[in-house]
Amino acid sequence: MSPNDLAPPTLAAPQSRLRPQSVAIVGATGAVGEALLQCLHQRHFPLSRLRLLASPRSAGKLLPFDDEQIPVEPLTADAFAGVDIALFSAGGARSRSFAPAAVAAGAIVVDNSSAFRMDPDVPLVVPEINAGDIAGHRGIIANPNCAAIIAGVPLWPLHQINPIRRLVITTYQSASGAGAAAMQELLDATRGYLDGNEPAPRVMPHPYAFNLFSHNTEIDPATGYNDEETKVIRELRKIFAAPDLRITATCVRVPVLRAHSIAINVTFDRPMTPATARDILATAPGLRVVDDAAHNHFPMPREASGQDAILVGRLREDHSDPSGRSLAMFVAGDQLLKGAALNAVQIAERL
Amino acid sequence: MSPNDLAPPTLAAPQSRLRPQSVAIVGATGAVGEALLQCLHQRHFPLSRLRLLASPRSAGKLLPFDDEQIPVEPLTADAFAGVDIALFSAGGARSRSFAPAAVAAGAIVVDNSSAFRMDPDVPLVVPEINAGDIAGHRGIIANPNCAAIIAGVPLWPLHQINPIRRLVITTYQSASGAGAAAMQELLDATRGYLDGNEPAPRVMPHPYAFNLFSHNTEIDPATGYNDEETKVIRELRKIFAAPDLRITATCVRVPVLRAHSIAINVTFDRPMTPATARDILATAPGLRVVDDAAHNHFPMPREASGQDAILVGRLREDHSDPSGRSLAMFVAGDQLLKGAALNAVQIAERL
Repeated sequence: MSPNDLAPPTLAAPQSRLRPQSVAIVGATGAVGEALLQCLHQRHFPLSRLRLLASPRSAGKLLPFDDEQIPVEPLTADAFAGVDIALFSAGGARSRSFAPAAVAAGAIVVDNSSAFRMDPDVPLVVPEINAGDIAGHRGIIANPNCAAIIAGVPLWPLHQINPIRRLVITTYQSASGAGAAAMQELLDATRGYLDGNEPAPRVMPHPYAFNLFSHNTEIDPATGYNDEETKVIRELRKIFAAPDLRITATCVRVPVLRAHSIAINVTFDRPMTPATARDILATAPGLRVVDDAAHNHFPMPREASGQDAILVGRLREDHSDPSGRSLAMFVAGDQLLKGAALNAVQIAERL
Repeated sequence: MSPNDLAPPTLAAPQSRLRPQSVAIVGATGAVGEALLQCLHQRHFPLSRLRLLASPRSAGKLLPFDDEQIPVEPLTADAFAGVDIALFSAGGARSRSFAPAAVAAGAIVVDNSSAFRMDPDVPLVVPEINAGDIAGHRGIIANPNCAAIIAGVPLWPLHQINPIRRLVITTYQSASGAGAAAMQELLDATRGYLDGNEPAPRVMPHPYAFNLFSHNTEIDPATGYNDEETKVIRELRKIFAAPDLRITATCVRVPVLRAHSIAINVTFDRPMTPATARDILATAPGLRVVDDAAHNHFPMPREASGQDAILVGRLREDHSDPSGRSLAMFVAGDQLLKGAALNAVQIAERL
């Protein structure tokens, strides 16, 4: 049996124990909104009601769910009456504007934006890592940055056995992290390039066809790190409850549609062999080990797309650290699923 | 003036001192062969004669050079009579078969394949780094692996000021490194994907459209490193004359056509600030600093394509190393030019 034939261990959805919930999706028409609908459907989330909220220009649009057509309603401060759980994915500004109203109306907010992630009163949760933090919420639970989730899930079970001392994270991030418009831009730019009439960039700062560029977020002039890198570093520390964990990150946008890949160089407290790490990862939740050197088959974004599990492999000793404490690994995870919507629905399942 | 407006320092071609040479290109019809012709032309390489050699199936084909149409001749062991310099770029097997015949006929071979690179009798040369090693040749001079060249040129001037102690190299490698057929496969696969009928992979082991995968070279079962990674590590050590330099590498193929990008995490012997590194790189040969945080403008493969200079930027302190000795940087260089043909022609200019 090759390593990638291992059945993925999954976190079972505990919905049989849940009473049906009234759920609202804020940002229902976006790329993550669409994935949220897909996750609620596929995981048979027990719904008493599903409401779809979006900007006024999308109001009235019908979105399919479970053989029904559900109308999109305009997002307003008084739209949350009777809502148990509000899944926000409409950007930080809308979360800051409307999440307090949702909480005041009695809803618990699971927020996919970065608005509240570093607030000490807001749990930042990856269920495979720190589901217990959910209990401390005061109405808002934050869903982490996609790259932090995708790096964190495979690192956590290793960290439990042998504490991580340093991480060098290098990403290959897909268009989907910048939303549906960015995915369309990649498709349009590529078709235009092939036809000899590439359109000018709209969402992205640089031509995207057959190109890659530093992550398109603001750069801190003091450190030179962009916002994405700072999020990965700070959020991993918070999720791992390891405020001093030494992490550096380089975040790069690549011409891939919807799954992020990450090269991780990890240094542990004590020596760790690739075989030991592989064994630990093979039974850890949310992962699938894809590490088939004979067939040059390792995690790839095309194979990770549409998958709940994060793919992990290319486990090797980093011989540049003679202490035997450093490993190289490569992961790929669907940015829209485990990197966003799936993680949010998993949090909602635990509420 | 923004940093990327800096004029690129270049190694001037010393051709005015050369007597005209009889040059043969072996593998003239390949992607690197085409770039070799371009470099000889653009650099006004003093030619007494130019012969184009390739497999028998390409023989008779005419290739344009300097307003002439030069016929391709079949590559045979007795094709090298009267040749001063033979630029080989037809794969390791052909180099092993025919380079000794070329040397026996009196030619000096500059070999772009990996056949002789680690031979202790063969200099492995990047002119910006170790041009002096050329003098010790015994008929063959090896052109290094493209990723080793592109990483090595920006690292060398820093290493002169503050010796490098460790390198974590993570690549984003283009299709061109696998030849013209791989570039065509990326174009065809992408167009097919957009049209809903993606062709099966031919040259590459995995679907290439909007995908990335571990570098398509054989993997050492003992270490888990692929051949490309092993080349980068061993060749950088040889070029730098630093046999114990601690290096790890992760080599990844991305859906980009012809320039390689590399994220480099470098630890020096002593603390090094990004500003100091930027100053050193700004005056070093073969480089152009592209490090404009205000406009999110850093090295990109589309901008590096067709450029002689390697682009270097995103210089940042790696705060995961509290000693202040580690920097992050990002480079992009044309795989066909400085990564292959240009470097070979620069070596030939020095013969």
